[in-house]
Amino acid sequence: MSDARRWFDLSSPFRMKRGGELVGARLAYETWGELNAARDNAILILTGLSPSAHAASSDEDPSPGWWEEMLGPGKHIDTDRWFVICANTLGSCKGSTGPADVNPVTGEPYRLDFPELTLEDAANASFELVRGLGIDLLACLLGNSMGGMTALAYLAQHPGSARAHASISTAAQAQPFAIAIRSLQRESIRLDPNWQQGRYDDAHYPEAGMSIARKLGVITYRSAMEWVGRFARIRLDSDQRDEEPFAVEFQIESYLAGHARRFVRSFDPNSYLYLSRASDWFDIGEHAGGNVDNALKRLGVERALVIGVETDILFPLPQQEQIADGLRAGGAEVDFVALDSPQGHDAFLVDIPRFGAAIARFLAAL
Amino acid sequence: MSDARRWFDLSSPFRMKRGGELVGARLAYETWGELNAARDNAILILTGLSPSAHAASSDEDPSPGWWEEMLGPGKHIDTDRWFVICANTLGSCKGSTGPADVNPVTGEPYRLDFPELTLEDAANASFELVRGLGIDLLACLLGNSMGGMTALAYLAQHPGSARAHASISTAAQAQPFAIAIRSLQRESIRLDPNWQQGRYDDAHYPEAGMSIARKLGVITYRSAMEWVGRFARIRLDSDQRDEEPFAVEFQIESYLAGHARRFVRSFDPNSYLYLSRASDWFDIGEHAGGNVDNALKRLGVERALVIGVETDILFPLPQQEQIADGLRAGGAEVDFVALDSPQGHDAFLVDIPRFGAAIARFLAAL
Repeated sequence: MSDARRWFDLSSPFRMKRGGELVGARLAYETWGELNAARDNAILILTGLSPSAHAASSDEDPSPGWWEEMLGPGKHIDTDRWFVICANTLGSCKGSTGPADVNPVTGEPYRLDFPELTLEDAANASFELVRGLGIDLLACLLGNSMGGMTALAYLAQHPGSARAHASISTAAQAQPFAIAIRSLQRESIRLDPNWQQGRYDDAHYPEAGMSIARKLGVITYRSAMEWVGRFARIRLDSDQRDEEPFAVEFQIESYLAGHARRFVRSFDPNSYLYLSRASDWFDIGEHAGGNVDNALKRLGVERALVIGVETDILFPLPQQEQIADGLRAGGAEVDFVALDSPQGHDAFLVDIPRFGAAIARFLAAL
Repeated sequence: MSDARRWFDLSSPFRMKRGGELVGARLAYETWGELNAARDNAILILTGLSPSAHAASSDEDPSPGWWEEMLGPGKHIDTDRWFVICANTLGSCKGSTGPADVNPVTGEPYRLDFPELTLEDAANASFELVRGLGIDLLACLLGNSMGGMTALAYLAQHPGSARAHASISTAAQAQPFAIAIRSLQRESIRLDPNWQQGRYDDAHYPEAGMSIARKLGVITYRSAMEWVGRFARIRLDSDQRDEEPFAVEFQIESYLAGHARRFVRSFDPNSYLYLSRASDWFDIGEHAGGNVDNALKRLGVERALVIGVETDILFPLPQQEQIADGLRAGGAEVDFVALDSPQGHDAFLVDIPRFGAAIARFLAAL
């Protein structure tokens, strides 16, 4: 299988916000386009909880990426003009160092010995990558969902390190509804007897817990409105309820099951726990004595695009408004875009026409 | 412990919509106030999934009921004027016959041998109770949440059996978002190794599954907006994370844990599964060849109050609008009330000032 990933060695030891450190850690990343001579055309994309660095196809890896329609030559993020970097989050399991990797100090997988991870750490790792690629100033730092929080952590720790910022379906701090959902996802994994305090293996794997966590994720990533139109009350053709009285019966249930099936074995459960908890911990206010608005004022970007979606229940629109207001108060010229995409939080992944237009318009003006 | 419950013997065998039947089944119910000589002042309350028949205190049982502030002498539902009946749902575990009860035919608990239960069956059982109390025509049939669907099933099967109808935070048919949530709640219980296809006992009880199901319920019963104001990012004083790395840390998590703790052992898991599935199955359209609007036209009530809440994500406002429009098209005089209570679906239980005012105004005009 072709692979476009490259690896960047982080400083070692890589010191983390809450006290731990990583030895010999690295980030997986991919790039598209060419860095120009002035080194001023770089865009860094920070991702949501589960995506890899493979945002789009390339000659080295022609498989479609998670943002395939958004990114490429002539596309909304035009790689004929921009040098685009996408990093796999520190602590993830898609090439960057995370709980599933071997700790070189002990020779054993980290599992729960992985140090407490914050989005500030993930941001700092990406910052090292950008510097390592010889880029002092990003043309644009773009983050969506958890990656949007990571981007805010990036700018809070390194103000002025990006000229422009695109903040998509994210939050300046985790709020209780999202914390409740993520806490319940983590609990589902932890209560699975196969989780075994993180010491599962392929034969004893917390499949049930991961499945519940993923289904709950999908439920909160989309919107009730979309599903009314898409699934309504359509039943499955095959009725398995003779053998199993509470088996799936409606298309919506089978849709969730399909999502879970594709995810459960492709994402490390411990990594999921670490990234999920890091999202709950995030509060940009910590960088300004507890005041979110003050923290948002100090990010040092000249221009910003903030996009939110009216049907997003996980990162509701007022959270995007707060980011836009804070950036504006800090002197940035801000485009705030509230989209009425029906797909909820996931809209940035699927409603490419609306998101692409907003992003392309913003980048064209840079 | 004092108990105001009475029991009503259903017809035996009690035939059920999907083909099964119950022998010697009964309903638990409570009443408040006096039935007048004309027998025309009766209000029947049908409940959500988990409440008992104990809606309010009385001389016989002075403990507070689940709608204590709503119901009583001089209260919004004034029992000085009205004879109020509240029935525990057929299939529940609060006195009415359900999966936890002994099947008199076999001498063993029903468990999963309980016949497939629909809200139409629950409605028919309540209809028999009302007839058994000597009431031909209800002054008002009131249902909230699942009880609101049961009330629609009642009227669809017995049109004209209530002069007025109060429909609160409910739906004419289960929609995919709510089905997805309930399906996941059922899955959490079913995946608990202690569930054992319904053959748990007190020593081996699906505690983890019930806990996840309840927490997910509470998350969808309330609203993000309420929680921002109530919990924000407040941490717990006692930090248990030294011993347990992913233990609860935020107040919102401890709030959910408290709800789960109180619920898990007080509600029968199999009963939960049956009632949850019955809610998914509900579609009033089935009573009019698949057409919801036509079914709503035929309920034969003169006046109706339909209340919905803007922050309700489980039974969103458009579902209440649909009910109001359908009743109006059927010739009823309809008061439609959209409340901006912050408490989401649960608002009818807690925002008594807003709900009480609307209900009292409606009842005063009857």
